[in-house]
Amino acid sequence: MVLCVGKLKEKFYADAAAEYAKRLSRYCKLEIIEIPEERLRENPSQIEIERALGKEAEAIRAKLPSASVVAAMCIEGRQRSSEEFARLIGEAAGSGKSLVFLIGGSNGLDEGLKRGVWERLSMSRMTFPHHLARVMLLEQLYRGYQIQEGGKYHK
Amino acid sequence: MVLCVGKLKEKFYADAAAEYAKRLSRYCKLEIIEIPEERLRENPSQIEIERALGKEAEAIRAKLPSASVVAAMCIEGRQRSSEEFARLIGEAAGSGKSLVFLIGGSNGLDEGLKRGVWERLSMSRMTFPHHLARVMLLEQLYRGYQIQEGGKYHK
Repeated sequence: MVLCVGKLKEKFYADAAAEYAKRLSRYCKLEIIEIPEERLRENPSQIEIERALGKEAEAIRAKLPSASVVAAMCIEGRQRSSEEFARLIGEAAGSGKSLVFLIGGSNGLDEGLKRGVWERLSMSRMTFPHHLARVMLLEQLYRGYQIQEGGKYHK
Repeated sequence: MVLCVGKLKEKFYADAAAEYAKRLSRYCKLEIIEIPEERLRENPSQIEIERALGKEAEAIRAKLPSASVVAAMCIEGRQRSSEEFARLIGEAAGSGKSLVFLIGGSNGLDEGLKRGVWERLSMSRMTFPHHLARVMLLEQLYRGYQIQEGGKYHK
């Protein structure tokens, strides 16, 4: 399951995500759930941002399956190679719990929410828009299943 | 200038790249040049792959402007944050030379070509398809110019 804050605005990212979701349907029961992004005024204060993240975190917690392992996508998390990521998916599958990836909105994820998760995962030291991050994550999931299968997609 | 091996096959990646190229036109004279990817048979040997990469490297060298600083995108390169990347673009602009990014095809770039470059740049420990890497790089270029300008796009 991929729990995301906010909708994909650009058509090309929505199309890319849909394509990887289609390819992933061969391998897993993928569910992508979008949580509305809290609205903020122009130039919000740090406190206003944190309050909005807190509300989004509540909405995220309400959607989490009771038995789940949660990976939060965040720039300061741990980076893994595609092979390591494939093993991570395998481990989660072995646990019998639902694997849930969290992707925050433009201000990321609530600190409290991130503290409690199984894995804090970073894809890059670079900051990417969360829309593009969703496409990158879905591509890595697809690649991860291909690696597990010993397929030729991965190089 | 972005020198890429191979064409963007998926429409959504082509659309995404076109969108960032449009946005970048405000900031720089962006030129995206595609070099044909050498054809390989199914399950090529390492030697066949290296020979193909060598031919692609020749085609790349033939397209390089005489005064250029070259950054080769490769997974084993150095990772930079978006802020560091913005400074890198600034440094290159200060040199008065053309800044050229190289993105290889599905087998990456020739080792000899990579040895001679100004910067070996990695965006992630994860392996991404070179089509997606092109979108990621263009997005980072756009973000880099926004950072230099002190714009609000970057968070």
